[in-house]
Amino acid sequence: MNGNTFGTLFRITTYGESHGSSVGAIVDGCPSGLPLSEIDFALDMGRRQGGKSSFTTARKETDEVLIESGVFEGLTTGAPISLRVLNRQQNSQDYEPYRNQPRPGHADLTLQLKQGHRDHRGGGRSSARETTARVAAGVVAKKVLAQLGVRITAWVNRVGPMPLTEERAHWARTCSVEDLMRARDASELGFPETEGNEALRAVEALKEAGDSWGGQIGARIDGAPPGLGEPIFDKLPALLSHGLFSLPAVVAVELGGGESMSHLPGSAIRDPIGFKDSSNQPTPLSNNHGGFLGGLSTGWPMQISVSFHAPTSIPRPIETVDLSTNESTTIEVVGRHDSFPLPRAIPMVEAMLAITLTDCFLRSGKIGERL
Amino acid sequence: MNGNTFGTLFRITTYGESHGSSVGAIVDGCPSGLPLSEIDFALDMGRRQGGKSSFTTARKETDEVLIESGVFEGLTTGAPISLRVLNRQQNSQDYEPYRNQPRPGHADLTLQLKQGHRDHRGGGRSSARETTARVAAGVVAKKVLAQLGVRITAWVNRVGPMPLTEERAHWARTCSVEDLMRARDASELGFPETEGNEALRAVEALKEAGDSWGGQIGARIDGAPPGLGEPIFDKLPALLSHGLFSLPAVVAVELGGGESMSHLPGSAIRDPIGFKDSSNQPTPLSNNHGGFLGGLSTGWPMQISVSFHAPTSIPRPIETVDLSTNESTTIEVVGRHDSFPLPRAIPMVEAMLAITLTDCFLRSGKIGERL
Amino acid sequence: MNGNTFGTLFRITTYGESHGSSVGAIVDGCPSGLPLSEIDFALDMGRRQGGKSSFTTARKETDEVLIESGVFEGLTTGAPISLRVLNRQQNSQDYEPYRNQPRPGHADLTLQLKQGHRDHRGGGRSSARETTARVAAGVVAKKVLAQLGVRITAWVNRVGPMPLTEERAHWARTCSVEDLMRARDASELGFPETEGNEALRAVEALKEAGDSWGGQIGARIDGAPPGLGEPIFDKLPALLSHGLFSLPAVVAVELGGGESMSHLPGSAIRDPIGFKDSSNQPTPLSNNHGGFLGGLSTGWPMQISVSFHAPTSIPRPIETVDLSTNESTTIEVVGRHDSFPLPRAIPMVEAMLAITLTDCFLRSGKIGERL
Amino acid sequence: MNGNTFGTLFRITTYGESHGSSVGAIVDGCPSGLPLSEIDFALDMGRRQGGKSSFTTARKETDEVLIESGVFEGLTTGAPISLRVLNRQQNSQDYEPYRNQPRPGHADLTLQLKQGHRDHRGGGRSSARETTARVAAGVVAKKVLAQLGVRITAWVNRVGPMPLTEERAHWARTCSVEDLMRARDASELGFPETEGNEALRAVEALKEAGDSWGGQIGARIDGAPPGLGEPIFDKLPALLSHGLFSLPAVVAVELGGGESMSHLPGSAIRDPIGFKDSSNQPTPLSNNHGGFLGGLSTGWPMQISVSFHAPTSIPRPIETVDLSTNESTTIEVVGRHDSFPLPRAIPMVEAMLAITLTDCFLRSGKIGERL
Repeated sequence: MNGNTFGTLFRITTYGESHGSSVGAIVDGCPSGLPLSEIDFALDMGRRQGGKSSFTTARKETDEVLIESGVFEGLTTGAPISLRVLNRQQNSQDYEPYRNQPRPGHADLTLQLKQGHRDHRGGGRSSARETTARVAAGVVAKKVLAQLGVRITAWVNRVGPMPLTEERAHWARTCSVEDLMRARDASELGFPETEGNEALRAVEALKEAGDSWGGQIGARIDGAPPGLGEPIFDKLPALLSHGLFSLPAVVAVELGGGESMSHLPGSAIRDPIGFKDSSNQPTPLSNNHGGFLGGLSTGWPMQISVSFHAPTSIPRPIETVDLSTNESTTIEVVGRHDSFPLPRAIPMVEAMLAITLTDCFLRSGKIGERL
Repeated sequence: MNGNTFGTLFRITTYGESHGSSVGAIVDGCPSGLPLSEIDFALDMGRRQGGKSSFTTARKETDEVLIESGVFEGLTTGAPISLRVLNRQQNSQDYEPYRNQPRPGHADLTLQLKQGHRDHRGGGRSSARETTARVAAGVVAKKVLAQLGVRITAWVNRVGPMPLTEERAHWARTCSVEDLMRARDASELGFPETEGNEALRAVEALKEAGDSWGGQIGARIDGAPPGLGEPIFDKLPALLSHGLFSLPAVVAVELGGGESMSHLPGSAIRDPIGFKDSSNQPTPLSNNHGGFLGGLSTGWPMQISVSFHAPTSIPRPIETVDLSTNESTTIEVVGRHDSFPLPRAIPMVEAMLAITLTDCFLRSGKIGERL
Repeated sequence: MNGNTFGTLFRITTYGESHGSSVGAIVDGCPSGLPLSEIDFALDMGRRQGGKSSFTTARKETDEVLIESGVFEGLTTGAPISLRVLNRQQNSQDYEPYRNQPRPGHADLTLQLKQGHRDHRGGGRSSARETTARVAAGVVAKKVLAQLGVRITAWVNRVGPMPLTEERAHWARTCSVEDLMRARDASELGFPETEGNEALRAVEALKEAGDSWGGQIGARIDGAPPGLGEPIFDKLPALLSHGLFSLPAVVAVELGGGESMSHLPGSAIRDPIGFKDSSNQPTPLSNNHGGFLGGLSTGWPMQISVSFHAPTSIPRPIETVDLSTNESTTIEVVGRHDSFPLPRAIPMVEAMLAITLTDCFLRSGKIGERL
Repeated sequence: MNGNTFGTLFRITTYGESHGSSVGAIVDGCPSGLPLSEIDFALDMGRRQGGKSSFTTARKETDEVLIESGVFEGLTTGAPISLRVLNRQQNSQDYEPYRNQPRPGHADLTLQLKQGHRDHRGGGRSSARETTARVAAGVVAKKVLAQLGVRITAWVNRVGPMPLTEERAHWARTCSVEDLMRARDASELGFPETEGNEALRAVEALKEAGDSWGGQIGARIDGAPPGLGEPIFDKLPALLSHGLFSLPAVVAVELGGGESMSHLPGSAIRDPIGFKDSSNQPTPLSNNHGGFLGGLSTGWPMQISVSFHAPTSIPRPIETVDLSTNESTTIEVVGRHDSFPLPRAIPMVEAMLAITLTDCFLRSGKIGERL
């Protein structure tokens, strides 16, 4: 196993298993002079844990992020920032059945075949618990970006098969960030639909049935300058999709105009170029391309969608094997389950986008060693 | 600009502009002992150039790949393999209007804003000509993979808004690789549809109208062992999507079950685990997950879709600016155009998948310095 | 600041300041199946802290290494191993004078000029305290290497201007590893000289005079197979020297035949090739090249020397500036000092060699995901 | 084999064997706006080939560097710069005896053991011919640095066992760059000694005897700002030594005060800190540390020495094995030989220093996408 580091100059390295003593991240390459304290992490930690939603795993206490290095007297120093979150509430015994019986739909089987020995408790290294470290690192990246006027906002775009209405989806991509956040946060599902009750009932119904929904997260990046990303292998969409597909359960990533853009003829998707707002800098005059052109940012809001499959840890029996006896058997995955985890994925998506984008700023020299 | 290298141990570094003297790639990390000669490249070079299709850019002569290093007496030595393709048929004067007038829908504007100075001829570094180098490198990767029993096959899954029928799409994902290739290669569009004439007529119609279609490439990877990829940031889907989104005009990537999987409840997507074919190695008994689990390969065929937007170089006037005068103007992009370039994208998709997968083999230690 | 990660597949990422809450390392890429427990670290932690020597900084308690991840039921799992050492005995007030007054001979000034804001306490990130994390990571690498039959042994080769006798230096390079370790560990200075009392008296004299000595560490690597390293930029000597020069106060690195080899004519340095020990594998018949040929290991013991300048933190006044007033001033560096820190550098040198070599094994595919 | 790329943002990837069709480098990450043309390479290409020296390999024609990409109308564009040098004068038949008989003192044996198949002609990939590509890339880096006021100068510091006098060595490190270059270029040996005839006679004597000398290259870097390099693993000395030890035949690297500094007590090596030249920026007031402090540049000239062992390709018989028969045999290495190749190493050392330093500038954000 390798690949626990992400990024070139702004680099995140994570560690930790679901039932170990802690999970955490080392954030390398953060410029000095950024105000940072442990309280900065509380909001996103709470969102990642499901907040007030009744459809997501309930851990009673909010995760606290401990800063072990890299900050002195309230400001980053440029040294690596070590972030650490203690693991609590571990009922490892609950997982004893899965020691030898890999859970279908999880990494249990593939990881066992790869490494031969694994920590089976709570999914071990492949648990979504690992994303705690990324969300924490994402908070640092978001704070860097905020100083550069860049904002990243994600929301639930689709609940299982129920998308936002076309009109509302358009609104979410084009309204003010403040309005979007307000609508999103008013919904237990993170779903900024004016008529969202149908989705809520659908989630309730599947929860009762011991089943689960996936869906889609939408996201936008506002305020980034043109020219971020590198034109060939490290196109901005390529880097962003790498980060997004590194999240658990992602099955599709759309960037810019997205899949629907590929249905249209060329004549329908071109953005003319001109001058906006009496600026001397030429720019596309519309945003059919959704913020990217030639792999680089255009200066327009960047549009992103990420689809997640439904959680497979549902309390219904399914066939598996017992590795100790090499015989087939049936298990029922018990324990904490999410019937609709996408609200928790919102800060994860925001984190991966923020981490990637901060790295792009550093690689381009648009920011240096100090903020 | 940086980021012209892709991969960790099996690494591709490309160079070259559309109207420079040559384009090429250095392939680093190829094990020794692989038979390789210049004739090996002819097929994919021809496919990238559009082959017999009447809808793609016509370059008269097939690109020839020159091997400048890394091969001795017909076998790779482990040394970097330098591949070089001469540029011919360059009518640079055709592009003189675009020196100061960035073409909407191209990288012209964003690259200009990024670097301040660019080679405008034929799109320069951002031309699809650059993919020649990748397709050449992909041939090397495919030959490595072939020795390991792995085959990568791509086809056109959708022509603009016209997809394969659901039944035929299912067939393409599950039939024998030979049958799929036969059906694909029988179609001028690379579209393995039994009733493909409607799509053909639609492409002809847009071509006549001076317009263009995008669409979707489907791909599958057969024969890979379980456990490829790394569980966190370098999940196999994350690496593959990075490579795919680095191709020009990509707007969506779906891996495994894809976007449609995210519409389904958890109960509908789980693959039970058992033993297949009297093997002692446990494996999923079905392939709802499309070849990936926990970011690692499962041993089942991997399923991939990549959507490309339509070409924006169409012979219709559009507004742009003149950088030398800072005034708005109107241009009409002339020159060679693709009304439906997706057949040419087939070997590009195959190349990026093959390059990425070969790197995963090396990173896992499943192959070493010699084949 | 970036560059807190070292290695390609076996990767070390460290964090931590001298007076923060902890220092630590994430070890990525360790194969699964390696027995590892916290007790494994005690010996090298003690050696890094100076052991019984009266000439090195005295921290009263031995550092304990906490394993936070990557080990399950006594065996590594392949997941990243997070190692953490608490900081104790911090008298940060001692360092208050250096907040604005950079200590000559330290990183204080250059780091301040680079980052603008720094943790001045105990040298902050540039303290030798950071090497704790490397020595801990080195223990993991040494355990991997031990399973492959590779042993790394370092000793003090020169105390200030007093080297081992030529005869004894030759002995140290060619005797059995056990004999070498015995002689080294019998000396408070780590100096395997039969007549070492002169050096001891010289160190005592400088200690009393409020002064300090540097010197040279010798090292050898026994048991490595031929062919490790990569022939061009990542020659084994290049990788090893990178690691060694990343240690504090290093001023020279000699690998293989070393500086003295460059005084000799070509006729005096060639090793003929033949067969040894009735093996069928050809090998050099002598070791003038000191274990490396063409940047690759030869299978013979590898010879290494690393020279460290004397510590500059000595209790003698020296001119500096006050950054808060921009005026010149005089300081005397007080606090814990090493009059001869080279015994503590022994495990640091061993650690960097072990980490580098383990990475080479992984990059070559000679070991994979499991031990 | 991997590792044919060097650097993080300013990256060099080389290819090519001694007797292949060409050798070359792709330079990635060069900012746009740098004037560059093929004539810029002539001087260093000539120096690498031995110039007027009678003691180095004589290739009749000067290597010409072809720029295949990355430059448009005389200025770099930010795109990768592909540099290519044709191989000429290849008498591959001369090398036929070494196909199965590895030459002692060369990479032949270790590379054979590593890869199993190799191009034996002229040393193949391990030939010093590969350094042509680095020297070419170094020219680009030097031109970037020149725009930043940084100059890199190397010279021969020692001929076999005959060093510059202590006084002259001090002069070389402290005189004006122009004076140093004049004295160096006046000597056929690159040896800026006023009384250099003894060395010249010694080289002549060994040449006649069919033998060879190694020696030492000195180098200095003038004009760099303080704070370059990264404080932990990527200390500036660590990066520089990595680059230097990647050159063929290097056995020792000294950076800053060098090996001799490690003989001195701490009291003798400290540089007080103050203000120089009525500047407000504090700086060391002397340069005992030789330009580095805490792994970062100080703003003072950086001092470097690199020791090379003598060439082992000398026309004297030596024992080796025949791989085709597995029997011992005796060979005499014939062909072109250097009796004293260090003058040719001067531009190689300068190139690796320049490439490394340019990367440090980019990593620190001190330069960005455009010059």
